[in-house]
Amino acid sequence: MNDTKKIAVGIVGASGYGGVQLVRLLWEHPQVEITYLGGNESAGKDFAELYPHFGHRFHYKIEPIDVEMIAQRCQVVFLSLPHGLAYKIAPQLLEKGLQVLDLSADYRFSDLNTYSTAYNVERDDEETASNAVYGLPELYQSLIKNTSLVGCPGCYPTASLLAIAPLLKQGLILPESLIIDAKSGTSGGGRKSKVNLLLAEADNTLSPYGVAGHRHTPEIEAICTHLAGVDMRVQFTPHLIPMVRGMLTTVYATLRDPGLVGDDLITIYNAFYRSSPFVRILPNGVYPQTKWTAGTNLCYIGIEVDPRTDRVIVMSAIDNLMKGQAAQAVQCLNIMRGWEETLGLPEIAFYP
Amino acid sequence: MNDTKKIAVGIVGASGYGGVQLVRLLWEHPQVEITYLGGNESAGKDFAELYPHFGHRFHYKIEPIDVEMIAQRCQVVFLSLPHGLAYKIAPQLLEKGLQVLDLSADYRFSDLNTYSTAYNVERDDEETASNAVYGLPELYQSLIKNTSLVGCPGCYPTASLLAIAPLLKQGLILPESLIIDAKSGTSGGGRKSKVNLLLAEADNTLSPYGVAGHRHTPEIEAICTHLAGVDMRVQFTPHLIPMVRGMLTTVYATLRDPGLVGDDLITIYNAFYRSSPFVRILPNGVYPQTKWTAGTNLCYIGIEVDPRTDRVIVMSAIDNLMKGQAAQAVQCLNIMRGWEETLGLPEIAFYP
Amino acid sequence: MNDTKKIAVGIVGASGYGGVQLVRLLWEHPQVEITYLGGNESAGKDFAELYPHFGHRFHYKIEPIDVEMIAQRCQVVFLSLPHGLAYKIAPQLLEKGLQVLDLSADYRFSDLNTYSTAYNVERDDEETASNAVYGLPELYQSLIKNTSLVGCPGCYPTASLLAIAPLLKQGLILPESLIIDAKSGTSGGGRKSKVNLLLAEADNTLSPYGVAGHRHTPEIEAICTHLAGVDMRVQFTPHLIPMVRGMLTTVYATLRDPGLVGDDLITIYNAFYRSSPFVRILPNGVYPQTKWTAGTNLCYIGIEVDPRTDRVIVMSAIDNLMKGQAAQAVQCLNIMRGWEETLGLPEIAFYP
Amino acid sequence: MNDTKKIAVGIVGASGYGGVQLVRLLWEHPQVEITYLGGNESAGKDFAELYPHFGHRFHYKIEPIDVEMIAQRCQVVFLSLPHGLAYKIAPQLLEKGLQVLDLSADYRFSDLNTYSTAYNVERDDEETASNAVYGLPELYQSLIKNTSLVGCPGCYPTASLLAIAPLLKQGLILPESLIIDAKSGTSGGGRKSKVNLLLAEADNTLSPYGVAGHRHTPEIEAICTHLAGVDMRVQFTPHLIPMVRGMLTTVYATLRDPGLVGDDLITIYNAFYRSSPFVRILPNGVYPQTKWTAGTNLCYIGIEVDPRTDRVIVMSAIDNLMKGQAAQAVQCLNIMRGWEETLGLPEIAFYP
Repeated sequence: MNDTKKIAVGIVGASGYGGVQLVRLLWEHPQVEITYLGGNESAGKDFAELYPHFGHRFHYKIEPIDVEMIAQRCQVVFLSLPHGLAYKIAPQLLEKGLQVLDLSADYRFSDLNTYSTAYNVERDDEETASNAVYGLPELYQSLIKNTSLVGCPGCYPTASLLAIAPLLKQGLILPESLIIDAKSGTSGGGRKSKVNLLLAEADNTLSPYGVAGHRHTPEIEAICTHLAGVDMRVQFTPHLIPMVRGMLTTVYATLRDPGLVGDDLITIYNAFYRSSPFVRILPNGVYPQTKWTAGTNLCYIGIEVDPRTDRVIVMSAIDNLMKGQAAQAVQCLNIMRGWEETLGLPEIAFYP
Repeated sequence: MNDTKKIAVGIVGASGYGGVQLVRLLWEHPQVEITYLGGNESAGKDFAELYPHFGHRFHYKIEPIDVEMIAQRCQVVFLSLPHGLAYKIAPQLLEKGLQVLDLSADYRFSDLNTYSTAYNVERDDEETASNAVYGLPELYQSLIKNTSLVGCPGCYPTASLLAIAPLLKQGLILPESLIIDAKSGTSGGGRKSKVNLLLAEADNTLSPYGVAGHRHTPEIEAICTHLAGVDMRVQFTPHLIPMVRGMLTTVYATLRDPGLVGDDLITIYNAFYRSSPFVRILPNGVYPQTKWTAGTNLCYIGIEVDPRTDRVIVMSAIDNLMKGQAAQAVQCLNIMRGWEETLGLPEIAFYP
Repeated sequence: MNDTKKIAVGIVGASGYGGVQLVRLLWEHPQVEITYLGGNESAGKDFAELYPHFGHRFHYKIEPIDVEMIAQRCQVVFLSLPHGLAYKIAPQLLEKGLQVLDLSADYRFSDLNTYSTAYNVERDDEETASNAVYGLPELYQSLIKNTSLVGCPGCYPTASLLAIAPLLKQGLILPESLIIDAKSGTSGGGRKSKVNLLLAEADNTLSPYGVAGHRHTPEIEAICTHLAGVDMRVQFTPHLIPMVRGMLTTVYATLRDPGLVGDDLITIYNAFYRSSPFVRILPNGVYPQTKWTAGTNLCYIGIEVDPRTDRVIVMSAIDNLMKGQAAQAVQCLNIMRGWEETLGLPEIAFYP
Repeated sequence: MNDTKKIAVGIVGASGYGGVQLVRLLWEHPQVEITYLGGNESAGKDFAELYPHFGHRFHYKIEPIDVEMIAQRCQVVFLSLPHGLAYKIAPQLLEKGLQVLDLSADYRFSDLNTYSTAYNVERDDEETASNAVYGLPELYQSLIKNTSLVGCPGCYPTASLLAIAPLLKQGLILPESLIIDAKSGTSGGGRKSKVNLLLAEADNTLSPYGVAGHRHTPEIEAICTHLAGVDMRVQFTPHLIPMVRGMLTTVYATLRDPGLVGDDLITIYNAFYRSSPFVRILPNGVYPQTKWTAGTNLCYIGIEVDPRTDRVIVMSAIDNLMKGQAAQAVQCLNIMRGWEETLGLPEIAFYP
């Protein structure tokens, strides 16, 4: 294939951690060419001023966010902006024929009331939103293939839903018993100067936050409800972990059939994810480590059944900035374009 | 008070992390004098060879473990040995009139069958074991006051039980709903050369272990059963966190009375721990950080109720080597000797 | 001693890391009582709002910075403000009879031109500045004893000067050969939200900064010049280390007398610091670790001579927030008041 | 190209960190096929037992180290063994026509006396050793192209020599003034259970080691002497940094010509490394961060001149396991086989 056939891709919001992952991945992606980087506060700066390690090969300037310019330069655009901004430009970009992958919360909800309650933003783009597809390829691959607008899931919902989906789809658990205890590295907080994310504050410590009220809860619940076919209320507790990248969820649920053993569930999970190249079910007795996923689009899942309590414990690990954010968006792009799902996406971590 | 009235104290197993905390605390304790440090492999070495920062003021040699010698030199002895060793010398030490505080699992179980199953050690000291008191002062203060043998709790049971006790004692939760998701720094693994605890392996990653089968589970269950008055089965999942010290437990349970709100429970917890100087119940909406406990004997507890799920979420933070190990043993000693409970124990962390 | 004899002490700039260390240390200091906490942006807040782990015993509000109020309430005041603010209030506080310990750069320079060049602040308080004493007790104890105004050294100068002083005072090295390679934990950057100090940025990486032009260089040079009696130019390179606390300097210098061996220098250093309870010279072949100093006012010094190159390598470790900042200021206070130099200052770290 | 043309490659010592990097890199290298993994203690185990994240795609067993078997299966072999083992099998492997890349110290020295003194191993393979080429491609590319035996440099010499080489080759500095202050992540200590490399010991601390006597010193000196054409004595001080990967050297030297400014040296360095795709000279005022190199074969170099002291300070950053070990060996293989030098080697880090 020669370069003239490459797809022109833009990234809006290139200065954040989502942006820099996208730049890194798309720069080496064999089928795309980056033709635009956009930002608000960072407009006018060289990308290498923000990330000097890109300085020798990569000579892009961050440009203002201008719909006309984006439409002229790009066939596909990734929106990596804070919540409440994407919906202001996505409809116009779609109208001009672009494919849009939004990494914010704006297009993750089929019910905009849920979104507005959680994010405190009034919306008037119901029609656009109703056409958006939830960008979790392991669950919605065929929809992603046929859409122009993907609302890419957050990192917590990705890790949680991959751990839970087979249980819900197969009706294996009591719905009201579902508890997700989630742990995330601090890069999930973004490249924003916040005191609580300083190394001096966040290193050598551990704390929960957003208990019983985190904004990712309604997102998880909406998809769980869709998967289970019954209304779901989920207990979700995130924790901040003293590490840069990585996310682990520990999921607890009570089995409907207490006769199921770990190997049964491993079989079910392997079957469920048999066409999902990035999900790796671990053998009995092996539990996931987030480090195995660093810099990859992988999700490792370990499963344990406790016959004393009739509970299943499912543990999933991802890289919050990759499968939890940028790499998953590229995976969606691969599917939308009909390319190999794994194209340009790392599949083995550097260890240690 | 002059020095001649100080109590002579020995530490068996001084070379490990439990040992070095004990040395540090007892060295500055106003009522005791360290008169003996003992060890197996480390016998014959200067303590400062193992911990050079003690080298300028503290000139102790680690001596062989000899019951006669200990009895001649000490009135009180702390046993900080791996499981399955303390019970071989504790009965003789008690017979010679010493007070014994054991930091291993050997004297934590009133039912030795439970111990033998969990630790795979056969025991023949039922009588001694039946006189041992579980060294969690917030629950068993009056028993500790009147015993000569304390089996000090492990770090996971300490953090878990302090979070749970008021719920169980007051019958506030459905017993079968109890889930403890626990997170610990790597110092809990001791000063032993294990590949999985290397910085290169354990830093920047996160993983569960011992899922549905960790050895601390029966210890937690035994005390829970005692507190609740009904047979308890507990879901307990420990995780290894990339930090040196600190432990957090996130406890989930279903409330019997869904009308209870967070402030009710905060009131109940404050009342329950009103005489416990080391337990600090946090205000509504504040959750504990392990860093607040570093180098202290404190336990911070945060409480949240989720009215959507009728669950209470209790979060407790301790320093796993202090309240979870050595400092709690010193707290027990203070009680056994009739001293102020807080004597010689740090109460405010250095932050950050 | 009863409480009525305690000295009333205020802290201006209580919200930062220097402030919280001072609060922590002075709260337990047997001879002082905290009577005032002041701040600018934080004025009006409860101290426990900023540092919730203080919330149970310590009920102070941060008040506006008001010279009259401070003078009414305090006998001694610590100024823990950014550079360029202390000099605006110190003269008035001194006039009202207070003892002033300034932790900023404002009173570290006997030559205000050097200060003005380095900090870009014009000054008009020459007279006050000329009466200030440099608060490094190991070098200037007798001056500190007799002053009302101490300019406490920065962390880099403290670690550097303690490593170098015996060499310069004894004329043991070629002055132009002095190189200081310094390494600091990120808490030295303060409790300010800066992107480069985020855990996500600063963890798992290492970088130099301020090469050949760091603001601490003139401070180090001024004292070196004073100690050596000749004009000194020092090569100083700081590095940011992925840890919260701790500072290490590795000092290189060429020996005048290549016949000196390591043991000679160890003898010289031990003699030099024989009356300095916080400086600990390590035995031959043992090098300092910053962790040994965490939470203490100690400085560990290791010395090596390389006969192949005729160089001496001196390594010093301190806690940058303690001996490098707050605890050293308390040490100065102890000296100013004629108390035991070590009063209220931790002397053994909790390890690990 | 189809698979039948791929080169058959073996890795002896696959279980360590060098081994796992080699497996990771060669597995994705377009021109090679891994046909053998060998080990001593790990023989008989599945590779995925040691590194479970390889478990889903990669099904290799570690086999005993057998020269005949290696020769039958491989055209090229990487030896990633502890020092003193490679020289026992390399001569036979070479005799059988294999190309050998040794990652240990065994073939880094043209003078075996220097090796024997530093590593305390007697050798009898002078002829083989005299044919070995030092595997630093930026300095010895043409020799590497024409040899069958490469002795790959250690991480410290790689980082140090890349920083120093232009200065020495151009005769820009006073030879006796050279000081290297080096800082390394703990993975450099290998996947061996050592107490001092435990996270609990090595995290949140910093310490020097091997001062004035580290084994990498003679290796650095031998190459420096070769580059400078005069006998060189180097001051080299390594430090252990609380991070997994990464190495930074801060090099100090006195300029012969004090009129040189930073931009002059940047020009000289850029010219020197103009054909070196993995060396990146930073613009004036930008200093390297080790994180920029993580998971890549890059070396970033920053340069500063201090006109006050007539010194140049050169700072170089690499990933100690990549450019400092495994990736550099693959770079050598690329050169030996006449492939593109960058083939299969990552060139942009994932950040943060």
